Amino acid sequence: MEAPRVPPAPPCLLVLFGATGDLTRRLLMPALINMTRAGLLDEKFRILGIGIEPGDDAMLRERLASFHPEKGGEGDTERGAAWTQLSERIHYVQGDFTQDAIYERVKQEVGDGNAAFYLATPPALFAPIAAKLGAHGLTDEAKGFRRIAIEKPFGHDLQSARALNAALLESAAESQIYRIDHFLGKETVQNIMTARFANMMIEGLWSSDKIDHVQITAAETVGIGTRGAFYDVTGALRDMVPNHLFQLLAMIAMEPPTSFDAESIRTEKGKVLKAIRHYSVEEARDNGVRGQFTAGTAEGAAVPAYTETPHVAADSRTETYVALKLLVDTWRWAGVPFYLRTGKLLAARDTEIVVTFKPVPFAQFASIPAEHRPPPNRLVIQVQPNEGLSMQISIKRPGLVVEAVPVALDFRYAAMFDISGLTGYETLLYDLFVGDQTLFQRADGIEAGWAAVQPFLDAWADAPAPDPYAPGSSGPEAADALLARDGRQWCPVGAARCP
Amino acid sequence: MEAPRVPPAPPCLLVLFGATGDLTRRLLMPALINMTRAGLLDEKFRILGIGIEPGDDAMLRERLASFHPEKGGEGDTERGAAWTQLSERIHYVQGDFTQDAIYERVKQEVGDGNAAFYLATPPALFAPIAAKLGAHGLTDEAKGFRRIAIEKPFGHDLQSARALNAALLESAAESQIYRIDHFLGKETVQNIMTARFANMMIEGLWSSDKIDHVQITAAETVGIGTRGAFYDVTGALRDMVPNHLFQLLAMIAMEPPTSFDAESIRTEKGKVLKAIRHYSVEEARDNGVRGQFTAGTAEGAAVPAYTETPHVAADSRTETYVALKLLVDTWRWAGVPFYLRTGKLLAARDTEIVVTFKPVPFAQFASIPAEHRPPPNRLVIQVQPNEGLSMQISIKRPGLVVEAVPVALDFRYAAMFDISGLTGYETLLYDLFVGDQTLFQRADGIEAGWAAVQPFLDAWADAPAPDPYAPGSSGPEAADALLARDGRQWCPVGAARCP
Repeated sequence: MEAPRVPPAPPCLLVLFGATGDLTRRLLMPALINMTRAGLLDEKFRILGIGIEPGDDAMLRERLASFHPEKGGEGDTERGAAWTQLSERIHYVQGDFTQDAIYERVKQEVGDGNAAFYLATPPALFAPIAAKLGAHGLTDEAKGFRRIAIEKPFGHDLQSARALNAALLESAAESQIYRIDHFLGKETVQNIMTARFANMMIEGLWSSDKIDHVQITAAETVGIGTRGAFYDVTGALRDMVPNHLFQLLAMIAMEPPTSFDAESIRTEKGKVLKAIRHYSVEEARDNGVRGQFTAGTAEGAAVPAYTETPHVAADSRTETYVALKLLVDTWRWAGVPFYLRTGKLLAARDTEIVVTFKPVPFAQFASIPAEHRPPPNRLVIQVQPNEGLSMQISIKRPGLVVEAVPVALDFRYAAMFDISGLTGYETLLYDLFVGDQTLFQRADGIEAGWAAVQPFLDAWADAPAPDPYAPGSSGPEAADALLARDGRQWCPVGAARCP
Repeated sequence: MEAPRVPPAPPCLLVLFGATGDLTRRLLMPALINMTRAGLLDEKFRILGIGIEPGDDAMLRERLASFHPEKGGEGDTERGAAWTQLSERIHYVQGDFTQDAIYERVKQEVGDGNAAFYLATPPALFAPIAAKLGAHGLTDEAKGFRRIAIEKPFGHDLQSARALNAALLESAAESQIYRIDHFLGKETVQNIMTARFANMMIEGLWSSDKIDHVQITAAETVGIGTRGAFYDVTGALRDMVPNHLFQLLAMIAMEPPTSFDAESIRTEKGKVLKAIRHYSVEEARDNGVRGQFTAGTAEGAAVPAYTETPHVAADSRTETYVALKLLVDTWRWAGVPFYLRTGKLLAARDTEIVVTFKPVPFAQFASIPAEHRPPPNRLVIQVQPNEGLSMQISIKRPGLVVEAVPVALDFRYAAMFDISGLTGYETLLYDLFVGDQTLFQRADGIEAGWAAVQPFLDAWADAPAPDPYAPGSSGPEAADALLARDGRQWCPVGAARCP
């Protein structure tokens, strides 16, 4: 099925701070090529790359040409044509982000036009660059829009997140700041709101009356790779929870907005993130589990222990796995735990949300042996891979005995749509250029997320080493115990069906 | 998946009144053969056939051997072995059901054992045979069970149904009377209760809060065939509505029983049938549509008009199609119409229940053009053919525009179970032999059904000819108008999806 055509975004100069870096090459360029193919960019759209390295337009064009090969490949001539068309619009200026000269040069290039400043830089430069943009009048929208796009991390705890937001808001208005969470570019994530608010059969069930608990999993099979220096000061909690997992939680738990504009939606998401119960340090210890992978084998290859990973401290206490039990203190969710987990080197790549419904009254099934009683219903939103949605219900097994057996009613995107080859950044960049902040995080939401994880950061600041877990496993045993003490269990990582 | 083994039914003599008839050969024998194969019959199980025709055991065995060929076929040796085994247990006695002699003979054969009297006879004989059974002490359960099984029609209006029940209950207790509605033998029909009461995701939605209306359709592609004499005094309303369609309605609309025993379930079904609003004659005229097929073509063959059908009066005003709008006056269903329709020579063979949920609040979709707004959710229970269950929901169409598109999450029995070759009578006969009345109709339910249709019978007693409709169509236009005036429309007969 073809999506309806949308008009190209307004003309705009995309100023890429850190144009020679990894993010630009791996994620932004493939998306911009897809957008060129789809006619989503204005004829006057241009890219101004800025970097500290010496070079000219040809240098940057050549470097960006090595965009991720899995998207398209050599033989894709249409893609090649789009790259040719796009590359002619790429220009390069060498300069130091901390010096004024480069901003004056940018100002000349922007002129009276629209500009999006994309800070593909280390996060420590977000506030300094924003300040320079402000100081040079580059955030003044009198003549055209001026937008600043940044990617997480947005701080490393509540205090630093607040400081970053305050600094950014000194140079630009909230309406000019586009905080990117690339999870929100995924179709399956955007679909959560549609699945809820376009369906009486889903939203009609969506409360503690009917729902027993929610599991949100982001399991990776990869390890730390070459990112040890970054990861060792970050860990799984900071890297994944207050951003990606909380965005999923917010979309599952938010109240329906009264309209679908960006402010209404971001207000509702912020409200529910603020309603996550703030644990005491003791409660955080009781409701969180940290894990760190040991040496072992994963997908057939030997894997060194986390503490043997390059650029990781040999006595590192950084977690590569985290599981949390959270409570959302709203009328709708009172008594419904949200269990979150994420980790590296797990049994399968699997990002999913499992909503488990309350069991049906067993009195009616009293005559049926316990092992033949129906399992609870589940709604599984499979974010990646095998993008889709499953309803796990029970039907009567044909035959003379009345026995309920579980069956799954599945929808898979691949059966109906081609979403392969999309990076998710297409939507985010288009929205940046047209000025739709729906899929970008607002300051209050960022701070609400950090406020909810701060008790865990505090609890673990001086904690002993995380629980060990083997590569290729489902994480440490303590994570299973976290649910078992509530009489529940995780859906197995990567399993097609929950038991 | 294999169903769990159940023990064979207790030993029993099945006394078949009308053993040489069509019902016995076409429906009972295939079921009894399947039961033999599945080990569901006791070694001492025997069949005593009674008929007016002269003959002996060999005559009856030979006649019954011509069971419906589509179930099994010539090459099915296992089936052949089961028939050999079963046929040796078949005996024949020639006699007149209205005379005492035959009952004395039956009494000798039954002795102190269990007996099920299956009245495969014209309905006019139900009460006389039951009376004779009673008079000869054959309904006395002091020594073994004595059960009477009959098939609809159970009367032809409220008064005659009451009279039949009263007559039967003079000779036997309600617990001995097994009123068969063969729809209840279908797995998809039995599954309705499991689907509702084993699933929070279904029962949690099951009320006027969430449900807009219910459609129950039993569409046939066949005409009247050689049954003109029967059909012309019966018509679609009597033939299908107070029995088959009302059983489906009762299972959709009943309150959850507090236990799954036969009396609890039949009490709840009876309650909801009694809650169908009794229209005045004027209201019945407004809420019912009658149709009669004209000459035309169906499935490529020329079809004479109903009034040209053999044994049908040339000026017949009997309906071959009926559509009703009914209301169920309970707290749960206030304001939710139940639209029922059934007819001969329609566009497709299609027995289905479509539960349409209320639309989601459109305020949230105000920015979306009307044609892009999501259709209402639907739960479709496909009774036959393509037995299964579908949930029709909406998801976000991938792409830059937020647009909800309908998708169907399907379960098909054929994907998981082999239910081909089963007649539905296996379950009903097993339950008759083990004494489980769950799937049989109780007197109060029968009478409640007739009471609800009586206003339509009265309204149409002197009405002009029914509305004409073409063979192969979806019925008369007035049936579409019945829903259109409420702003609704039928799901197309035989369509895979509702619009």
